[in-house]
Amino acid sequence: MRVVRVAAAQIGGISLRESRAEVVERLLALLEQAAGAGCGLVVFPELTLTTFFPRYFHEDVARTDPFFEAAMPGPETQPLFDAAARLGVGFHLGYAERVEEEGRVRRFNTAILVSPAGEIVGNYRKVHLPGHSEQLPDAPFQHLEKRYFEVGDLGFPVWRAFGGVVGMCICNDRRWPEAWRVMGLQGVELVALGFNTPETNIHHREPAHLRMFHHRLSLQAGAYQNATWVVAAAKSGDEDGHRLIAGSAIVSPTGEIVAEASTEGDELIVHDCDLDLGADLKRHVFDFARHRRPEAYTRITAQTAATRPA
Amino acid sequence: MRVVRVAAAQIGGISLRESRAEVVERLLALLEQAAGAGCGLVVFPELTLTTFFPRYFHEDVARTDPFFEAAMPGPETQPLFDAAARLGVGFHLGYAERVEEEGRVRRFNTAILVSPAGEIVGNYRKVHLPGHSEQLPDAPFQHLEKRYFEVGDLGFPVWRAFGGVVGMCICNDRRWPEAWRVMGLQGVELVALGFNTPETNIHHREPAHLRMFHHRLSLQAGAYQNATWVVAAAKSGDEDGHRLIAGSAIVSPTGEIVAEASTEGDELIVHDCDLDLGADLKRHVFDFARHRRPEAYTRITAQTAATRPA
Repeated sequence: MRVVRVAAAQIGGISLRESRAEVVERLLALLEQAAGAGCGLVVFPELTLTTFFPRYFHEDVARTDPFFEAAMPGPETQPLFDAAARLGVGFHLGYAERVEEEGRVRRFNTAILVSPAGEIVGNYRKVHLPGHSEQLPDAPFQHLEKRYFEVGDLGFPVWRAFGGVVGMCICNDRRWPEAWRVMGLQGVELVALGFNTPETNIHHREPAHLRMFHHRLSLQAGAYQNATWVVAAAKSGDEDGHRLIAGSAIVSPTGEIVAEASTEGDELIVHDCDLDLGADLKRHVFDFARHRRPEAYTRITAQTAATRPA
Repeated sequence: MRVVRVAAAQIGGISLRESRAEVVERLLALLEQAAGAGCGLVVFPELTLTTFFPRYFHEDVARTDPFFEAAMPGPETQPLFDAAARLGVGFHLGYAERVEEEGRVRRFNTAILVSPAGEIVGNYRKVHLPGHSEQLPDAPFQHLEKRYFEVGDLGFPVWRAFGGVVGMCICNDRRWPEAWRVMGLQGVELVALGFNTPETNIHHREPAHLRMFHHRLSLQAGAYQNATWVVAAAKSGDEDGHRLIAGSAIVSPTGEIVAEASTEGDELIVHDCDLDLGADLKRHVFDFARHRRPEAYTRITAQTAATRPA
């Protein structure tokens, strides 16, 4: 048994009018609550620090700068790192990253893993950006991640942390089995994952319940097929009239949901995750060394789009 | 709308004492029933024609020859092809294939797709062979697929058939997202799949309900993530004291189970599958051309086993 007590910290909607300092106060309250409950790791959502701004169109991308962090930690987020170190609790945090690299400004949808000493031990930049890059004038709201972010350039790394092997992915990544498998091929034992998922699919009509069903199905399949814990935190509820699904969840390496949020607001869910629980699956059904057949998988890396037979 | 009425034909247990002719009679009865219900395609299970013989150890692999088909159709299976042509119903059939190729005897766990004209239009040989190759003296029964079969050498092809794009995979393949994705990358719209899944996991103790849960989860994730129908047929129930799970199911491209067997015996489940139902998902959330990032997936084909970080 290698037990880590983990919390998913769901964050209710954040208004455009809410300041960074106000949001950080909310996060600190959950961090304190988690520490009081004996947690070693707290998983915050994707783009935790502001409203989900890709729903708003700006011709000039620089107009989104107020939603980005120019440094991590920065002056407004330093209190999170201080609290982590003081309380001895690590955390995962999603945020919009603005960085000068290669002589230019680059923007990513990013997540970090912070140790119980308050130090950044891992960086991930979202690979599967959903949505679109141009304004959709007829849509009820926008989903402009392809406009505001570059595709993540760090792959899907994992880190030795919290007594095990920890990976990260973000929101739409969870729908892509490739993301899970790349972490699985590095022996991942716990995946931290934040999401902002609108209640409504703006691209085509579908039954409303499918949003939550597909969220759960993606977590459960990714967990089972790679025998890993998944700790998924939502930003949820109402953001200035736009609604996000909740459903923050902790999923065991068998794919079973062992804890799930019961509200759409700020809420902590906690579970004792035994990092050894996936070991039997990894040794038998999912012993990749004995069972995988990469020679039959060549299309997965050789082609991007689907090509139908003649 | 491109609707195909499809049946999954679940087959209850087959005893060692049951003859090929007796089994074919059972299959013919279900084929007739499906034709009467207006079906265009009937999906039979994996290794449909005999008991699940990989549970029995033989030092000499040739001792398993009675479970294999030396020709397809052969004298005992020709009636299925005749009935298909007479009724205008296509079928998918799993069987043990013994063939002389490359100057030697080769054995595969195989499935075929047969047109409503009674002609074979597709062959698939199981890639993900579960189990082991040597006797496990302490196990309650054996699972010797790695002893009795070669790994399939045909990849995961798809075929233009039944008005759409049809793929096949077999039993344990359903647990591997790579199998689904390779078909998804060929625009698959319906996957036919047979299985024989023992009720008991002989490799390690686990809660009994997980066998059915993992079966369903694998089908549902494969369907959703590739926006394809899945038609899955079990060989189920009792085989000389050894029990197989049932749970034959038809899963829509949204990942929802739309029909499921209610018995462990011979049973037909039927659904009108609109092959266009996955089109919206393929155009948006799962528009591979816009969203997939093969440069981040290199491990999937570059390595077989998991390699943990230092």
